[in-house]
Parts: sequence; C-alpha cells; structure tokens
Amino acid sequence: MTEQTLQELFPILAAIKNPGDVQAMDEKELTRLGEEIRRMIIQTVSTTGGHLAPSLGVVELTMALLRVFNPARDRIVWDVGHQAYAYKLLTGRLGRFHTLRQLDGISGFPRICESPFDHFGVGHSSTSISAALGMAAARDLAHQDHKVVAVIGDGSMTAGLAYEGLNQAGGLGKNMVVVLNDNEMSISRNVGALSSFLSRKLSKRWVQRFKKEAESIMRQIPRIGDDLAEYARRSEDSLKSFFTPGMLFEAFRFTYIGPLQGHDMRMLTNVFQQTRELEGPILVHVLTKKGKGYAPAETNPTFFHGVGCFEPETGAARKFADCPLPSYTEVFGSTLCKLAEKDERVVAITAAMPEGTGVSCFADRFPERFFDVGICEQHAVTFAAGLASQGMKPVVAIYSTFMQRSYDQIVHDVCLQNLNVTFCLDRGGLVGEDGATHHGVYDLSFLRHIPGLVVMAPRNEPELQHMLATALAHEGPVALRYPRGVGEGAALVETPEILPLGRGELLREGSDGVIVALGSRVNPALEAARMLCEETGREVAVFNARFVKPLPEEHLLALAASQPFMLLVEENALPGGFGSAVLELLADHDALSSLRVKRLGVPDRFIEHGSQKELRARVGINRDGILNTLRALVR
Amino acid sequence: MTEQTLQELFPILAAIKNPGDVQAMDEKELTRLGEEIRRMIIQTVSTTGGHLAPSLGVVELTMALLRVFNPARDRIVWDVGHQAYAYKLLTGRLGRFHTLRQLDGISGFPRICESPFDHFGVGHSSTSISAALGMAAARDLAHQDHKVVAVIGDGSMTAGLAYEGLNQAGGLGKNMVVVLNDNEMSISRNVGALSSFLSRKLSKRWVQRFKKEAESIMRQIPRIGDDLAEYARRSEDSLKSFFTPGMLFEAFRFTYIGPLQGHDMRMLTNVFQQTRELEGPILVHVLTKKGKGYAPAETNPTFFHGVGCFEPETGAARKFADCPLPSYTEVFGSTLCKLAEKDERVVAITAAMPEGTGVSCFADRFPERFFDVGICEQHAVTFAAGLASQGMKPVVAIYSTFMQRSYDQIVHDVCLQNLNVTFCLDRGGLVGEDGATHHGVYDLSFLRHIPGLVVMAPRNEPELQHMLATALAHEGPVALRYPRGVGEGAALVETPEILPLGRGELLREGSDGVIVALGSRVNPALEAARMLCEETGREVAVFNARFVKPLPEEHLLALAASQPFMLLVEENALPGGFGSAVLELLADHDALSSLRVKRLGVPDRFIEHGSQKELRARVGINRDGILNTLRALVR
Repeated sequence: MTEQTLQELFPILAAIKNPGDVQAMDEKELTRLGEEIRRMIIQTVSTTGGHLAPSLGVVELTMALLRVFNPARDRIVWDVGHQAYAYKLLTGRLGRFHTLRQLDGISGFPRICESPFDHFGVGHSSTSISAALGMAAARDLAHQDHKVVAVIGDGSMTAGLAYEGLNQAGGLGKNMVVVLNDNEMSISRNVGALSSFLSRKLSKRWVQRFKKEAESIMRQIPRIGDDLAEYARRSEDSLKSFFTPGMLFEAFRFTYIGPLQGHDMRMLTNVFQQTRELEGPILVHVLTKKGKGYAPAETNPTFFHGVGCFEPETGAARKFADCPLPSYTEVFGSTLCKLAEKDERVVAITAAMPEGTGVSCFADRFPERFFDVGICEQHAVTFAAGLASQGMKPVVAIYSTFMQRSYDQIVHDVCLQNLNVTFCLDRGGLVGEDGATHHGVYDLSFLRHIPGLVVMAPRNEPELQHMLATALAHEGPVALRYPRGVGEGAALVETPEILPLGRGELLREGSDGVIVALGSRVNPALEAARMLCEETGREVAVFNARFVKPLPEEHLLALAASQPFMLLVEENALPGGFGSAVLELLADHDALSSLRVKRLGVPDRFIEHGSQKELRARVGINRDGILNTLRALVR
Repeated sequence: MTEQTLQELFPILAAIKNPGDVQAMDEKELTRLGEEIRRMIIQTVSTTGGHLAPSLGVVELTMALLRVFNPARDRIVWDVGHQAYAYKLLTGRLGRFHTLRQLDGISGFPRICESPFDHFGVGHSSTSISAALGMAAARDLAHQDHKVVAVIGDGSMTAGLAYEGLNQAGGLGKNMVVVLNDNEMSISRNVGALSSFLSRKLSKRWVQRFKKEAESIMRQIPRIGDDLAEYARRSEDSLKSFFTPGMLFEAFRFTYIGPLQGHDMRMLTNVFQQTRELEGPILVHVLTKKGKGYAPAETNPTFFHGVGCFEPETGAARKFADCPLPSYTEVFGSTLCKLAEKDERVVAITAAMPEGTGVSCFADRFPERFFDVGICEQHAVTFAAGLASQGMKPVVAIYSTFMQRSYDQIVHDVCLQNLNVTFCLDRGGLVGEDGATHHGVYDLSFLRHIPGLVVMAPRNEPELQHMLATALAHEGPVALRYPRGVGEGAALVETPEILPLGRGELLREGSDGVIVALGSRVNPALEAARMLCEETGREVAVFNARFVKPLPEEHLLALAASQPFMLLVEENALPGGFGSAVLELLADHDALSSLRVKRLGVPDRFIEHGSQKELRARVGINRDGILNTLRALVR
C-alpha cells in the first residue's frame, strides 16, 4: 500500500506521527481511529496470518493506555504480546505493518530491537509482571519517576511465573500498574480455580458464608431483628462488590480497581488517569471481548486466536488446493485416540492448548482421562509424574518451545524416578512466522543429556504413529518431537508398530558417503542424495536415525567404519543437538580418525521469523542446502 | 549401633514394626516416642550432617499423620523432603538411619526406590501439590478410595509451581488434603506478599475496609445507629477469624481448616480424623516451630536448616583443623561486594538463599540493591531481565540444580534480548550428600546451546574473582559456575582482572598429549599430569579452558594439531557438556583425523549421594581417575 493509499483509506491512523497524538483527539476521532485500527488489523492478518482475536480485543484498551501513559517515557510491557498489533500501529509501525510476521518484516510480537516503544520482548506467557517489577525497581534505584505498566491476560495469570511476580510486587510495594485483560480465555477457554474466581462464580458462596456470620452477630443485637431481611439484602448487594476478584489481588497487597468494561475508552482513560496518581502496586481489572468488532472472531475466538490466511469478508479460511494433507498434530491426535482405546491407563495432558496440540479429539472421546491444566507447563509435568507414579501412562502434549518451562520437572520429577511419561513436543524445529520466541530448536539439546530419557523424532506420519505406540509401550520416560505443519503425505497405518529402541533404518544404499538425518530432515536428505546421484553419479547412503537417545550405535559405528564421510542433518540447534550426540558416540569409540564428519542444523544464533520454507533455506537445512554441502563433500 | 543398643536407648521407636503401630499408642507413649525421634535425629545428624531444623519441626505432625493415614494404602507426599526424617524413622528405616546421606546409605530425601512408604521422590521445592493431585486423579480413574496428602511448607507455597497445582486442584475438586506446614520460614525468613498474608498482617487492613462498608450499610438503617460501636466491636472479633489466610485458599476452592498449633498432637490427630470424612480439596494450616525441641536449632533455624557436623550438646559446629579455606560461595560474595562498590548498577538477586549463595554480605552492605525473591527461580530471572532492560547489571545467584527451573527464562527473557544479566551458579558439579536431586551436573549442557550466552568455570578462587569481574564488564548475558565447598587455597587478589573472552591458559607444557580441563577439574588434571611424568617420564600438557562458550578455539585447534591425544575433563554430564562442545569445534574444523580424543565427566546416569570426594572418585574424575586414563592413553 502506498503512503497515499494509506492516507486515503486510513486517514486518522496515517496522520498519527507519534504515540502521543491520540491524547489530542476528540471522542469522535478516537472512535474512527478504533475502526481504522480494526480494519487495518483484519485486512493485514487476512493475508499474513497472525494473532487476530487477541489484538482486536484490546483496541480501546490500547488507545486508553496511550492517552494516559507516554511510551517515550513510561514503560509498557505486553504479556505474551499477541495482542500488541494496535500498539504497533500506534507506535510507528503502520508503514511496515504489511510485513507483519514476514521474512525480514516486523515481528508478530513486541521486540526491543524493533522499536524504542517496545520496552520488553515477549512471546512466552506470563513474564510481564516480573519484567515490569524489574523495571520499577530499576527506576527507583535511578531516582526516576516514570510509570511502569504490565498488561496481562487472565489466561496468563494462571501461570506460576505471574504468581511469583505478583507475590514479590506486593511484597516490595513499588509503584506499578498491572492491567488484567480478562476475556475469560487464554487460547482456549480457561480452566482452574482462578478462572471461576475471576468470573465471580465463587462470590455467592462467600456471600452465603458471610451472611451466616452476620446473622449470628445480628442475633446478638436483638432490636435489629426486625430489619434482618432488609439488612441481609442490602449487605448482600454491598458485599457482592466487596467479594470480588479484588480480594485475591488485595491478598497480594495490590490496590484493586475493577472490573471495568474494557471497550469503554472514555471510562478506561479516566481510570488510568486516576491510577497515575496512586501509590504502590495497582491492579486494574478490565473485561474485554476477544475478537471484538469482527463477528467471525467474536463467534469463534479460539479459531481466530492465531489464524492463517482467511477471507476478510466472511472469516472463512483460505483453502490451499495443494495442501490437503493432515498435519503432524492431527496424526498425533488421531493415533493417540486409537491407542487410548486399547489401554485405559493412557491419559492426556495439555497446557491450555487442546486444539493446538491435537488432543481435543481425545478430550471429546475420553473426557475423564483428559486434563487441560491451563498455562502451567511446570505443573503439567509434575502432575503427570504423580499420575505415572500410580501406574497411569500420561501423555503430555506441549509445544517444544513451551516445554522449556518444564525442564526442571522433566529432570527431577519424571526422569529421576524413571516414570512412564510420554512427552509429545509439537512444533519441534523452526516454526515459521511466530519467530525467535517460538522456534522449537533447543529441545534435543535440553533433553538428550537427561539420564534414562528416550528421545525420538519421526521422519513422516506413519513413523510418528509407530513412535507414539513405542513410547506408550516403553517402561520409562520418552520424548517425541515432530514439526509444525503438514507431513510428507505418507499413508497412515491402521496398527502402529513398536519400534526397537536405538535402531534406525538405512533408506538408501551408497558407498560415497552417508547422510545421517533425523526427523523432518530425512526426506530432504533423501532428495538431495538422489539429486547428487543424478548430477554426479555419486551414490551417497541415507540413514534415518530415528533415535537421538539411545542412538542407533551399532549401525552408526558400522557406517563410520565403511564410509568416507558422514553428513549429520537435523532441525535443532547445532550445539548439543543430534549431531553433537553422534560426534560423542564416534569419539568415544575412536571412530573419527578415517571419517570426515560434517554437521548441518540450526546455527548458534536466534533465528527470526519468516515461513518455515524460507527459514530452512536460509540456515541451509533444506534439500538445496543439503545438496550444496554434499557437492562440497564429494568434490 | 547394635539392635540391642537401639532397643535400650530408643525402646519405643525400636519397638515400631510398621507405621500403623503409632495408632495403638497412648498419649504417654507418643510423647516419649516424640522425644526418642528428636534424640535420634539430633544424634544422627550431628555426625552425618543434614536437614535438622525442618525435621525437628514436624515430629508431632508426622506422628499425627501416621495415626490417621495409613501409608501402606494412603499416599503422603512430602514437599522438598528435608523434613522427612521422622517419617523415615517411623516407616522402616530406623536400622539404616545412621547411614543417612552416606555413600550407599539411605537418602536425605524420600525416594520411591528406597521404601514402599515413600510415594514420591522429592528434593526441589513445591512439587507436592501437583504430584498429589496426579495421584488423586489416578485413584479416581481406578475407582479406588485411599487418601492423598501433600505436606508443604509456607516457603514452598511461594513458588509458582505450587500455585499452578493449587489452581488445578481447586478446579478439579478432587478429594485431597494439603497440609500447609507454616513456620514463617523457607530456608531463610520468607519474603513476598504471601508470607505476610499468612501471618495475618493484612487482616487488619481488610477489617478496616469491611468496617467502612458495614458502617455505610448501617447508616442506611437509621434506628440501629446507637449500637454501631457495639456492632463494630463484635463484628471485628467475628471477622478477624473470617479474614484469615483461609480466604486465599478458599479462592482456590479449598476448604480451609486452621491455623492449628502444630505441636499439639492430640488436636492434630482429631483434625486429621475429621478431614478424612470431608469431600473435595482440603487445606489444613498448621503452625510449627522450626528446630522445635532443640534449643540451638530453635534459636538459629537458618543455620540448622541444613547443617554439617556439630556437637549435639551445644550445637557448636565441629571445627575441621585441616579446612581453614574460604568456600567458593564466600569468595563470590566478598568479590561481588567489592565490585558493587565501584559500580552502582550492580544489583544482586537470590531465590530464598541469601546465606547459601553468599549474597547476605551484599544484602547488608547494599540493602536497596538486593532482592530476595523467595523460592521463585523463574521470576528471579525475568525480574533480572526487567532490571537489565533499564541499564542495571543484575547478578542472579542460584544453585545450579535450582537454576534448572529458570531455563526458559534464561533463553527467552535474557539471552534472546542479549541483556546484561550475570548468572552465578553455585554448587555446579557433584554436590555430595544431598544426592541425585541436587547435583549441578547439567548446567553446562542446558546453557551452552543458548545463543549469545558466555559460559565460564573457574579453576580456583582468584579465577572466580576474575570471572565475576569479566561477567560484569561484558555487555550481554554470562553464566558462571563453580563448585560447592572450599577452593584450592589460592590467594585472593585485591583487584580482579577482566579476562579476554574465549581464551584459556596453558598451565603445563608437554608434547605427549594434552589434558584440556575445566573448572574444578583443572587442578586434579595438573596433579595427574605431574604424577604421570614422575611415573613414566611422559610430559602431558595441561590446558585450563576457562570458557565453555565461546570456546578458546584458536588454542584448542593448535593443541589438536600438535598433540597425539586430547583428554577432556569436566565435572558435568558427558552428554552435551564441555567435552561435547570441544568435539563439535574439532569436527567442524576437520581436526579429528590425527587426534585421539577421550572425554571424562559425569556418566549418563543419575548419581546418588555420598561425599564429593567419594563421588568424584566413583565416576573417575578425581586425580586418580584422570591418572588412570592418562596411563591408558600414553601406553
């Protein structure tokens, strides 16, 4: 879109030169600004994909914040950051907004390096209170007096990290504002005691208890007896506002304000103005509607939480004719259901992502055996350990990047006790447009040194099926990682097989060298080997390792002894990853003296956003990257 | 102690054949049993060292639990487990109790593999609610009806994991009992909003607020006016019991019972009897005194939390004439103070362990720049990121094993943003008697794949000083790990130097091979090289690597090109550790063809408890182990 078109189609938005400009606007302009922001977000995300519903829900909240807080001076930390599109548009990124989540474009999340108005980079949930508290502490040490604001969703509030932050914030009593953006959702509908507390389902119980207390007091003051009913009615009304979610936050020594209607910008602005004057930690509880202002997203906020391309008029997902394959996530979900039918010890656990991890079908089929623990990856794993200690077979399905939160629990609660827990790490490898905060490229490195843990990665859909069956049959902990997106198109099997542990498969013969590949990199390796043969006549073998731990030792050592080179290919960070494990094996067996070894994987730097295809090409682990490396090796 | 002596000195305790025996005892016997348990714990721990004060505090609680719950059927999960000595004595481990924490003896913590009455292994804080909830869920799926009990301290309750467990437990509503063992301590005095809430310092504020509400209601009912004072007085009394810590737990849908006097066994037994009959999640709040019954521990519960050998009569620590050296912890603490004098941006953060990590001197000297966040390792790191984002230089001092909890925050909040945070991992390597749950042998493996993070380990005290100065001078994140216990006796320096990143030092010349050692293994490597020379005349070089990341690449490649073998020695897990990093470097530079490489480190299994000396010998990384490996290499 040219500058001129922008000005024509989004006149108010395009006129904003700095974030403070919203302060001078009148209500009519602000209303139109809100409409333009929503229109721009919908239009852009319909072509780029992205976090639509969360961002639509906070348009008024964002404008109100910018009317009161000056991001050139004050600090605003957006929790998770998938709701920050309006903020991006109002803080200098309108012109680049069409590059959202695209290779070399702007990020889908706040990033310190992207804008001086992004005060803290985010992506994983529930960091905002801790980060904002650190900022407030730094401000006080520097004797400054700007404001610090954290904006956090009610879903994010269920994570332990948020609680830890609240606890210290209340203890220190520093001036800071936490805006609780309460839409009764995280990505899916919230779970746990806190969520019903926020929605005040509990308050009635408390009011009842209080009434009993009050009645007993009243009975001790006989002359009031007549008015007991009147008193009770009035006190109930009054107490209903007293027994609000505020109680919880006041327990943490926050001053509680709310709940407020989150789409009434005028009122929000007034309240934020007042909070500027208050001392100590303040919690402002704002009720918003996820997807607000776009009917399809309001109706189906889970689908539109993070969405691919869609038709903006209808909200219908764009169909890709060339992509009729099931995703790894779907294959995992359907296979899990199948296996769970035959073994009632199988239970499934997810952390606020039943749809994303593919376990919603399991939840429908086996509701008693399904547990969504909320955004609580640590608890998910220790809870699984508790189940497994009693003979159950829990399957913990969490994205690779979020499983990072459970590292200690995997080591200490599961593996140290050799419990039968299966970790299914979806989105292992480069995830694409969500970028640096979301790539699952460290899992092999943070898992493979844990004693007793079996670590696998499938090359295609049926291998995922076999591996899941293998994990459930194995006595002890297993981790299984597979990529985001669709598979290879290999036919699914009716009955998955149990694979022998620590055994790979030779997919292609050859004596001019060998590629040892893992998971998603096996098929590109095969293609590269075929192309090399066509080009040069050289026959390079291809070995699918399947297991990172235990490694297919025998086969690898035999290949090392018979081949001139070994090219190791993985979609994980090179330090400490699969290739590193193979090097250790070969070194420990003195098998390196006559073998040239080369590793391909994700290099030792953070990888930004872009499509999976673009990123794999950029780091050189796609077919062409492998082929180029092969050419150099056989030269 | 012989069976006969046991029976003479501890007649009641020795007569217990199974845990249910306490049910038949009368009060007099139980009182004597409590005395015997305390005597046995004090006597044993005075020679073995261990967690004295926590275990003394729960003697009555343990007996009361065993009078009501049958651990052959019901499940009891002890949080952290450092309070479980009385439980061990009452569940079949009296005869082996003198082997507590000794090599091949019983563990200082509950272990599934040690006893059928240990239902869940623990060591790290705050896992008990999650594990117990998993057990309750498994019980219900199996249509059983035994009871599940978690015993958790108020310190452990501050961790996010506990909150996540509470939240789901309240949401699911399963029958389970959480005993909150409230001694107003974790290891040191508790911090944060929750702790003052538990001690009811907040209740007055609430009562005041309530009174205001009530007064405004009363004003609307005019004829009661006269009795307002009377009403207010009565209601305040009544409400004080209403506004208890219970409110917080009731917010999580727990039925709250308490606070109870935790050394009144009769009353505790009655209450536990009643809780057996209640449905849903129950929280029993018990007030205990840490160190109860042993005056020195009551007076100084922090010192006696985890203690070495002491004189049981006086509580005085046993002096070891051969050990006048400062510990690494002390060197770190004093150097940090020195560096902080010159740079006011330096702040220190610890997670409930100011004494253990050596920052208490910093806390005394620079109280505004010191932050104890409680048992909240995740928050500690994100809070540090917030501080660093504003130009401060936070130093996060946490034991290596507990830093596992912060893995995601280190990746996502600090390193991804390249923030100036220094991680000081005390107790890196084998920690000794605390055993498998506490060894810090994975830090190099879980840190070194994180892009941009500098990772170092000092060989002695002055090198720790230099490395801390280097970390604070470096722009970007740094991790520094050093061992538990005393150093090498090297003289401290007045002014620490800034080391060049990625540069090691050659400590010994030689051309018959090279040992590349890291941190605590450098001096044993030097000694082994000297002994080898005396034995065989072979001159093996010794290189102190200093840096795991960035590796001293140039020097290592030069050594690889000139030496017949390279022996890599570290006190970290072999998979993914320091040696693995060197292998990657050598392979990437095709430097392995004429070089024999051998790695020594902690093997790929969980290492049990024992002294550091014994364990290092057992895994072959002490002087003699290195020497044996050298002999084989030069043969």
